[in-house]
Amino acid sequence: MKVYYECAPCFLRQAKEALDLATKDESVKIEIMEEIVKIVGSEFNKEAVSNEVGTKIHRTIKDKTGNDDPYIIEKQKGNEIAFKFLPQIKEIIKADNRLESYVKAAIVGNIIDFGALGVNYDIENGIINNMKRDIALNHVDKLENTLKSANNVLYLADNNGEIVFDKLLIEKLKEYDVEVTVALKEKPILNDATVEDAVNIGLDEVAELVSTGTDSIGIIYGDISEEFREIFNNADMVISKGLGNYEGLTSMELGNKPVFVLLNVKCDPIAKDIGVNYLDNVVLKL
Amino acid sequence: MKVYYECAPCFLRQAKEALDLATKDESVKIEIMEEIVKIVGSEFNKEAVSNEVGTKIHRTIKDKTGNDDPYIIEKQKGNEIAFKFLPQIKEIIKADNRLESYVKAAIVGNIIDFGALGVNYDIENGIINNMKRDIALNHVDKLENTLKSANNVLYLADNNGEIVFDKLLIEKLKEYDVEVTVALKEKPILNDATVEDAVNIGLDEVAELVSTGTDSIGIIYGDISEEFREIFNNADMVISKGLGNYEGLTSMELGNKPVFVLLNVKCDPIAKDIGVNYLDNVVLKL
Repeated sequence: MKVYYECAPCFLRQAKEALDLATKDESVKIEIMEEIVKIVGSEFNKEAVSNEVGTKIHRTIKDKTGNDDPYIIEKQKGNEIAFKFLPQIKEIIKADNRLESYVKAAIVGNIIDFGALGVNYDIENGIINNMKRDIALNHVDKLENTLKSANNVLYLADNNGEIVFDKLLIEKLKEYDVEVTVALKEKPILNDATVEDAVNIGLDEVAELVSTGTDSIGIIYGDISEEFREIFNNADMVISKGLGNYEGLTSMELGNKPVFVLLNVKCDPIAKDIGVNYLDNVVLKL
Repeated sequence: MKVYYECAPCFLRQAKEALDLATKDESVKIEIMEEIVKIVGSEFNKEAVSNEVGTKIHRTIKDKTGNDDPYIIEKQKGNEIAFKFLPQIKEIIKADNRLESYVKAAIVGNIIDFGALGVNYDIENGIINNMKRDIALNHVDKLENTLKSANNVLYLADNNGEIVFDKLLIEKLKEYDVEVTVALKEKPILNDATVEDAVNIGLDEVAELVSTGTDSIGIIYGDISEEFREIFNNADMVISKGLGNYEGLTSMELGNKPVFVLLNVKCDPIAKDIGVNYLDNVVLKL
């Protein structure tokens, strides 16, 4: 996705939040902020890809503060929230046992996101309210049909916490007789889940886990490892979670590979790009 | 005031809000945002003066959109809110008729500010709650003593709406047998009051009105007219309203001129700079 004008203030809001999490030293913060405004000043133009700019910002913060996981506490909170709601979510989806309910749970998991919604968003209310809402743009039927003819699925994970609900969907996917490979970040960035985070919540029990080989926010084709590029190219279909992966995938050449994005629309640019409303839940075949 | 790291995201948040008010054309918005991130990228460093950077941003938005008063509706709303609360405020301050109560009313007027607090802040609740609160940093005694020996007062106005409450304080100041001159903006910028705005609410009935000769956010010594510079230099004392003027005055050489800043602390950088808390009310002798 190309940047929208609203992305510029959001980059700096998120940079401020990440800086606040990464260090308490004000003199370090202003030095890094100087560097970040220069990055945004030189990178932000209407041809720029949003998750590529975001990746540069968050790498700069990690690199310059020496804090390689600023969101570590937020990621733990994400898990706590997910496990707290897991019994309720399980009850809801097992009542009808439909693929759509599992998909919705995975999307609702995408609300556990401190990066996009800001650290003050009321996530707990968001989870419950969103399980009750319809999916605004719903290609679940296409997803199900594609699953039926696929042998393997590449699942691009997004945030920690969220992966607890992804696990439910992935177990369901396996009823369609597919091999599922889940891609996670090589190193921490924002509140994204790493391979280690996934092992911690037992995702390795239900799928093969692979690293994207990098710490980019969402997928960046030029950034991922050669090994992961091969996995991506060989996947029969892709299920992608969250904004960063949407931003990256819509800037890639996908050929005729079926790619489904599952996300909660946590900003106006994504809403405009997809053609839905802010905070809508979406299952979109790209 | 030199910029703090938090100023960078705030500049772009405010730029986005001003752009949203100035034009509906998204292609214009991203073009101007590109220019603004370049301005911030080149101007933002720890020696930069905050209201000078803000002035460049808002001038760019006016210039490039061709909209010379993006906040015109917000300014009208500011007046509406002020006049709605005027009877209540008058009742409170006339109950004890102390200078401090008039000063507090003028500070509470400073809450009617869409630029600093964002367009979604609940201003109406802010007004009532703040009239009940003590002034956190209170140099009203020094202000009163200085008034007693002064012949003329230069009053640096801030926002539209707010000036309705300034009028109450200015009438009170005249009991100290001083001539009051109120400085307003030459042209619109943000929701700042212009000479025309001041005449509209009858401020000319209680004071001489002058223009700063420019549209800077707060006072910028190098930017004001020769005529206004003379008025500033000849003033026995200065009463300054709001953040922008605080930011400008603290970056100027004031000699031994008594300068009092009256403001509600609408951001963390100002809170840190003064040494008080966010949203505190302040009467500070610089």
